[in-house]
This record gives sequence, structure tokens and C-alpha cells, in this order.
Amino acid sequence: MVSKKINLEKKFAKFTKHWSPRVVAEMNDYQFKIAKIKGEFVWHNHKETDETFIVIEGQMTIKFRKSEVKLSEGELFVVPKGVDHKPCADNECKILVIEPRGVINTGDNEGKFTIKKDIWV
Amino acid sequence: MVSKKINLEKKFAKFTKHWSPRVVAEMNDYQFKIAKIKGEFVWHNHKETDETFIVIEGQMTIKFRKSEVKLSEGELFVVPKGVDHKPCADNECKILVIEPRGVINTGDNEGKFTIKKDIWV
Repeated sequence: MVSKKINLEKKFAKFTKHWSPRVVAEMNDYQFKIAKIKGEFVWHNHKETDETFIVIEGQMTIKFRKSEVKLSEGELFVVPKGVDHKPCADNECKILVIEPRGVINTGDNEGKFTIKKDIWV
Repeated sequence: MVSKKINLEKKFAKFTKHWSPRVVAEMNDYQFKIAKIKGEFVWHNHKETDETFIVIEGQMTIKFRKSEVKLSEGELFVVPKGVDHKPCADNECKILVIEPRGVINTGDNEGKFTIKKDIWV
């Protein structure tokens, strides 16, 4: 066997930093990343790819320029490529993000939140 | 907005059939499918692609030729491409499967479990 099972709760227990996604698995050229989020992220978009959010625990809001979507545990949302979005969470929220390897978390809006290197957990 | 949020619990409530995956969302050329499984599936592999399982509720076992992995709620497993596997569940288990569009559920082993057309829910 070349892969191991991933227990998301155990993986979340290994870090505390907000807005710092950790890679937990890869499927072909896609990655599964977990993140703890709290507060407001930056507006950005990913020109080349859709991006999927699944809420594992808590609640988050994804703001769009003219609307927003509130997601709770067990809810999934695909942000289409090129669409400006801003993830937010009033309280800490644990999420699973699925997207191609190499996608930068802040998309077209590089800044203090930008993480360019994969961090595995 | 071009996509809607997916509440997995509500989607699972819309069908009862076992081993009959339903597409709930697409991300680029990948699909998110939910399935209720119970009993033993067939041995098969997917020559061209990895396949990801996430257990949403219950427990499942993925058997391999020389080992097996037991997965519970909140656990994720990537079956590497080309690896023979046989999903099983003693009791009904609800899973989320992520793989490229067009992957046939029974891979190289066509038979009574084979579903060739996408069924959206």
C-alpha cells in the first residue's frame, strides 16, 4: 500500500495557526488541504481553477462581490475559476480545501496571507 | 453566482439505493459523488486515476489484495491508480467520492454494479 488513511480530526490537532493551509493528501495532481480560519481573509480569485471548500467544523462565509454564501459543517461549495471571493469566519472554523497542486492561497492578491510552499501535516 | 452550496445530509436524504453514486458537484473536470454503501462491492481498479474516499457517516473497509484499511467518519483515503480494491461496509455507510469526470464505478470489472451514466442528485 502506498497511501495511508487520513484522520482529519487528528490532523487538525497538529497545528493552531489560522489561514495556514496544510496538505494532508494528494490525488493525481490535486491536493487536499485543511485549514483553520478565523476573521477575514483577502479578496482574491484563481484565474485557472475552481476551488472547493468543505466545512468540517464550525461555520464560514464566502463573500462574493454581490452576494455571499454561509456554510456549516457538512456543506460543500465550489468557487468557480476567476470569481472574486473572500473567505471569512466569525469564530474558528475548520475546513477542507480541494484544488490542483500549486494553487496559491491568495490567488491574484499576493500579500501577508500568501503561502507559496506546501506545508504538509 | 454560478454554483450553489451543497448540504451533504440533505443530498443523502434524496436516495436510498446502495452502490449507486450520485454526483453533487463538479470542480474543473473532477466530480464529487455521494454514495450509500452496504455489503461487498466488486474487486476493481482504475488504471488512469487515483480515487478519493471520505467517510461522512458510518464505517467502511477498503480491501486490497494483501491488506485492508478501515475508515470511520472524518477519515479520508486515496486509492492510488491501478491498485485493486474492494469497498465493503457491514452496515450502511455514507461516503463522498472524488475523482475525475467519466470514471466508471467498477473500473476494469464491468458487471451488475456498473453505472455508466452520471446521476445527479
